[in-house]
Amino acid sequence: MSGIGATPGAARAAGLREIGVGMLGYGFMGKAHSNAFRKIAYMTWPPPFLPRLVAIAGRSEEHVSAAAARYGYERWTTDWRDVVADERIGLFDNGGPNSLHAEPTIAAAEAGKHVICEKPLGRTAEESYEIWQRVAATGVKHLCAFNYRFVPAVRLARELMEAGELGEIRHFRGRYLQDWGDDPTRDSWRFQPDEAGSGALGDLGAHVVDLARYLVGEPTSVSALVRTFLPGRKVDDAIEAAVEFETGTIGTIESTRLALGRRNAFQWEINGSKGSLAFDMERLNELQVFRADGDRARGFKTVLVSESDHPFWEYWWPPGHIIGWGETFVHELHHVLRAIAEDADVAPHGATFEDGYRAAEVCDAIVRSSESGGREPIRYRS
Amino acid sequence: MSGIGATPGAARAAGLREIGVGMLGYGFMGKAHSNAFRKIAYMTWPPPFLPRLVAIAGRSEEHVSAAAARYGYERWTTDWRDVVADERIGLFDNGGPNSLHAEPTIAAAEAGKHVICEKPLGRTAEESYEIWQRVAATGVKHLCAFNYRFVPAVRLARELMEAGELGEIRHFRGRYLQDWGDDPTRDSWRFQPDEAGSGALGDLGAHVVDLARYLVGEPTSVSALVRTFLPGRKVDDAIEAAVEFETGTIGTIESTRLALGRRNAFQWEINGSKGSLAFDMERLNELQVFRADGDRARGFKTVLVSESDHPFWEYWWPPGHIIGWGETFVHELHHVLRAIAEDADVAPHGATFEDGYRAAEVCDAIVRSSESGGREPIRYRS
Amino acid sequence: MSGIGATPGAARAAGLREIGVGMLGYGFMGKAHSNAFRKIAYMTWPPPFLPRLVAIAGRSEEHVSAAAARYGYERWTTDWRDVVADERIGLFDNGGPNSLHAEPTIAAAEAGKHVICEKPLGRTAEESYEIWQRVAATGVKHLCAFNYRFVPAVRLARELMEAGELGEIRHFRGRYLQDWGDDPTRDSWRFQPDEAGSGALGDLGAHVVDLARYLVGEPTSVSALVRTFLPGRKVDDAIEAAVEFETGTIGTIESTRLALGRRNAFQWEINGSKGSLAFDMERLNELQVFRADGDRARGFKTVLVSESDHPFWEYWWPPGHIIGWGETFVHELHHVLRAIAEDADVAPHGATFEDGYRAAEVCDAIVRSSESGGREPIRYRS
Amino acid sequence: MSGIGATPGAARAAGLREIGVGMLGYGFMGKAHSNAFRKIAYMTWPPPFLPRLVAIAGRSEEHVSAAAARYGYERWTTDWRDVVADERIGLFDNGGPNSLHAEPTIAAAEAGKHVICEKPLGRTAEESYEIWQRVAATGVKHLCAFNYRFVPAVRLARELMEAGELGEIRHFRGRYLQDWGDDPTRDSWRFQPDEAGSGALGDLGAHVVDLARYLVGEPTSVSALVRTFLPGRKVDDAIEAAVEFETGTIGTIESTRLALGRRNAFQWEINGSKGSLAFDMERLNELQVFRADGDRARGFKTVLVSESDHPFWEYWWPPGHIIGWGETFVHELHHVLRAIAEDADVAPHGATFEDGYRAAEVCDAIVRSSESGGREPIRYRS
Repeated sequence: MSGIGATPGAARAAGLREIGVGMLGYGFMGKAHSNAFRKIAYMTWPPPFLPRLVAIAGRSEEHVSAAAARYGYERWTTDWRDVVADERIGLFDNGGPNSLHAEPTIAAAEAGKHVICEKPLGRTAEESYEIWQRVAATGVKHLCAFNYRFVPAVRLARELMEAGELGEIRHFRGRYLQDWGDDPTRDSWRFQPDEAGSGALGDLGAHVVDLARYLVGEPTSVSALVRTFLPGRKVDDAIEAAVEFETGTIGTIESTRLALGRRNAFQWEINGSKGSLAFDMERLNELQVFRADGDRARGFKTVLVSESDHPFWEYWWPPGHIIGWGETFVHELHHVLRAIAEDADVAPHGATFEDGYRAAEVCDAIVRSSESGGREPIRYRS
Repeated sequence: MSGIGATPGAARAAGLREIGVGMLGYGFMGKAHSNAFRKIAYMTWPPPFLPRLVAIAGRSEEHVSAAAARYGYERWTTDWRDVVADERIGLFDNGGPNSLHAEPTIAAAEAGKHVICEKPLGRTAEESYEIWQRVAATGVKHLCAFNYRFVPAVRLARELMEAGELGEIRHFRGRYLQDWGDDPTRDSWRFQPDEAGSGALGDLGAHVVDLARYLVGEPTSVSALVRTFLPGRKVDDAIEAAVEFETGTIGTIESTRLALGRRNAFQWEINGSKGSLAFDMERLNELQVFRADGDRARGFKTVLVSESDHPFWEYWWPPGHIIGWGETFVHELHHVLRAIAEDADVAPHGATFEDGYRAAEVCDAIVRSSESGGREPIRYRS
Repeated sequence: MSGIGATPGAARAAGLREIGVGMLGYGFMGKAHSNAFRKIAYMTWPPPFLPRLVAIAGRSEEHVSAAAARYGYERWTTDWRDVVADERIGLFDNGGPNSLHAEPTIAAAEAGKHVICEKPLGRTAEESYEIWQRVAATGVKHLCAFNYRFVPAVRLARELMEAGELGEIRHFRGRYLQDWGDDPTRDSWRFQPDEAGSGALGDLGAHVVDLARYLVGEPTSVSALVRTFLPGRKVDDAIEAAVEFETGTIGTIESTRLALGRRNAFQWEINGSKGSLAFDMERLNELQVFRADGDRARGFKTVLVSESDHPFWEYWWPPGHIIGWGETFVHELHHVLRAIAEDADVAPHGATFEDGYRAAEVCDAIVRSSESGGREPIRYRS
Repeated sequence: MSGIGATPGAARAAGLREIGVGMLGYGFMGKAHSNAFRKIAYMTWPPPFLPRLVAIAGRSEEHVSAAAARYGYERWTTDWRDVVADERIGLFDNGGPNSLHAEPTIAAAEAGKHVICEKPLGRTAEESYEIWQRVAATGVKHLCAFNYRFVPAVRLARELMEAGELGEIRHFRGRYLQDWGDDPTRDSWRFQPDEAGSGALGDLGAHVVDLARYLVGEPTSVSALVRTFLPGRKVDDAIEAAVEFETGTIGTIESTRLALGRRNAFQWEINGSKGSLAFDMERLNELQVFRADGDRARGFKTVLVSESDHPFWEYWWPPGHIIGWGETFVHELHHVLRAIAEDADVAPHGATFEDGYRAAEVCDAIVRSSESGGREPIRYRS
């Protein structure tokens, strides 16, 4: 027996629908998201939609045209408005610099496209609020790409906590440590206040804030320090904060680009009245689990989160055959596609623009606290 | 500015050539290889060839047709001879059960196609030798898919050793531990002697043998035990061997599917006269490195093999953003495509069919030693 | 040949002098210090003094008499004034509850005895200052028993830092996590405000403060939270603080008795402009060392601090034969004995009462900051 | 209230009996055992006996007299027969070179003293058998000082296994790795065949054999390699063996003094039908425990073996305050003293001379197998 395989006709015959994707940005996040859209088409099966990579926009003609050829976009443009205007596109994915988050994202939503926006949503809480409100008013699906919610170990942590296995949470300690900032000659939009908004705060600290919110709840105050170490550096290199949560939990939020030897060490630990969890993104397939269950053989378990009944693992390999950082985007963008396909909520597992805004409120409070020297209450607009 | 992106015409205009791929097998390895071919097209840039997934063959009409649709093969067939006969196909990739390695692989090579065959090459040294000789006679490129040579940490280990950083090698200790075999109800061709040839020996032990050969050199004798623990199990569950190498190195080779709690623990350690290396596939992004350099702060370094100057890392992400097990196939199949494109040798970094044959000689010697009780010398035919 | 061994006469003939020790307290610290005095006599050789355990004082006749018999004190008393009055005693060691630190320690010093006092020195900065001033005025040697300065890995860390191997220090993150506080029925003077002064703050947090000062420098401000979680608990269960140092370093100081699964996890990490260090007291024989030295094999080294050229290791075993927590007191009390024997300074490696006072100032500032909500500057009296 | 403390009269009044100890050897083991006898007197309470250090013997007058003074022996001698003849001595402890194990140990036993002998018991199975038989005939207690049975984690492992928590044992993998042998200039009786009998085999491999026997059961065959790497070295540097047990378990036994970077890495792993255990002596306070219990959070637990209900822990500190390698001797010698005091069996937790003999049979079989090239059956004399 033999037959026709994966032609578009075959796909349609199999009931698979396409969604047109328009991308803004061809750098780090452009690559990560494009890879995810391509993998969703066959690693998740059947996919909610077959992503069709319609167009990619970017500032440099040379780079955006190369990215189109490489990642398989049908066309490229140096004007993101072309993408927003393209009627074949149903999903607009904004992986551009922070300064390009607001206008294109809002325009795309107002053109009726579902929108994904890289984190941080805006450069300030004010800007983030504006994006959220304007986009929410259109009724499209929106996701702020806090991809670490889509690490299997993080999702498993959440599931264990929702099942009550940790009891009441007393401590959250999160720190995101990198060291690439220790190079005074390095240039990037990430060091430009206008484009980035902030340094380690928005780039790394926002991730810590988001997972704190996802796993523990809303921060209610921060007492913080924001510091720039390198001469001439125009954005912060590091932040330190003591934090209170509405649940009564207390803890710390830290981020730095100057922790030599730490390459992508987003580490967190949670202590509850029944157990504890710990994690390090440099070993993202592992979750440390402690339960106060009276077992004489007492200790943290190193759980290799790769079992068939573990989150997202139906897409991948046999147990123990670990996945990489890039796969978090497969999970995340698949989640958006399913929300669109089923008209389901992006929340609670996906970060919505409201989540993006709320993280920005915490980040802003960290800056205010550093400046005022006081413990800053955090108030969220609705 | 705007323009055309990734149409086939654009690809050709960019000088990218296609190679037609024919796949045999849609299971674990079929998925892993198909994923790799798809990723090579954009993660490695520019790729040596754009893989064109022409046809996939498999025993079950239901499954092979679904696989074609999922992974993007243009057509499917239940008869691998259809694939061998397809003139659009330049590369035949055999991911079928071990009993289907010899005939289709030889036929494809004799039809002028380059060939990839999953490990173990054959079910015995005799069969492996036949495959190697018949294929080598055709002049096509051939690779036996010992993918763990393409783990960045393994390649880095080899580079450090080639640079003399370990001095003379005294010990190799390799063990590949899994635990999925501990289920008497589980059915798989991997438990059928006719189809698999052996159990943990050919499935896991062959990997240990291959990396031992890749990193240390040729084994010259083994003293071994081969054991089946589960009642009714028809293949071996575990092997243990003391091994000598031509270099004077001594060590152990072990594999088992009954090491509860070990999911994919291919662990090895090498001790030389200047330093040591250690590795565990469950943390495949890490290499443990010790150098006897007189440093007062003496110890093993945990190297996160993810730097821009580390092997294969030009394809991926910023440092510390780890990759998964699946990416080893991207590296491996890319290596074959480059060898084809540049008419370069698959060896020494890729395992050729000669390597597949030699690993089989070691595996056979392990069986003989277990049966005879004696230390079995290993002789390699040329 | 044969001869007389270890009689007192033989010891005197060998030039070994005795020092009379008087101990206050027979609990956890009484045991730890008594063990150390006994081991100093033969594990450190030749010892600065042979400790002679003259007398031990404690509240319970039953327990103190048993402790005297067990640890080898010549006599016992329920009145510490007996010990202070004993002319055979040259060194008074206060291991009693915090509320018994001030009066006996001052009395002993004013009676001309050298003094050791467990940490925290006093229950407040005010009380600590009083102890320091009164004792310093007598001219005796004084040590506040922050024993973790005497962990080999901690001393090695200091030596590496003094040698400039870390460059300028940017971050200090210290946290001392235990979980025994999670038992509402447990009774101890450590839960009584009058006796203990504070909870996790003085018990564990003071250790973090002391090592921060020993390794990095003086804290200049803290922004902190102090929290009690268990109903009915009268002292704090946990503290969180963001901290600034006079060197410009920023970081965190945390302690809790409610981190389930953490038994004695005093963990710290230091990031400098040339490298980083990390440590966990649960693996106290290991120091993690990262150097930005351009090595392609880049990563943290796990240094097993047990080499013949490592701190304190001349007393112990061949490399890799690790020591325990109890040995830190051997090192510490030996340090005091040597300072007495040689009339040398206890500082900088031993914590003096000034160090005890300064740690208390930081602890007080943590409390003030928690109450005020503001960043509290720390001012040290001289 | 006050009173008399720890005078000998007080001890007697408390019902504590003394036992006279005679030591042979003042080097590494002399120090380790002497330290243990001294600590037993107060860390274990009440001790089975108060050890009275009566006499120590050694070859060098200078060193043995210094050792007597240091460790507190009442007298010293260069003739071990003086010790054997000393009627005050009830326990003879032989920590001398292997060549001095047989004659003094037998003589002491025949003089009615209980005997402890360092491992390996003899230099060959023949010599070991002679020691065992001659000593057993006298009726005294005898212990071969395989101290690693007295690591809390090892005892806990045994207890878990005895409770059936691992099910039937399929694999034992043990390796004892050190690197101090990599120094051609280093001199020691341990490199002299006459004095040591063998190299890494008897020094380290015997420990692996003993724990294999203690935890799994009797080895029935070995297929082994014994190798000397350093030019001029007269004893083996390393051994590798595949091993079968009477239980059906298969595995490996390895030892080397040339594993650079491994200082005291006695590592073992056991896999059973219900779970697995793993251990590394460089982290001797930790036991890795895996149970196949269906928990979704599946993985090895890092058990810090320091809880009040853990083996030997009643002697020590609060949980998490780890102990050192030296304490294993406290546990071991305490075990002997209790066996003497209560006229109880040294076995099964203490290794008797029969255990010492049986380990020697396995070691001899390893040598024979290396020489013959065959799998050597192991037969134990009774």
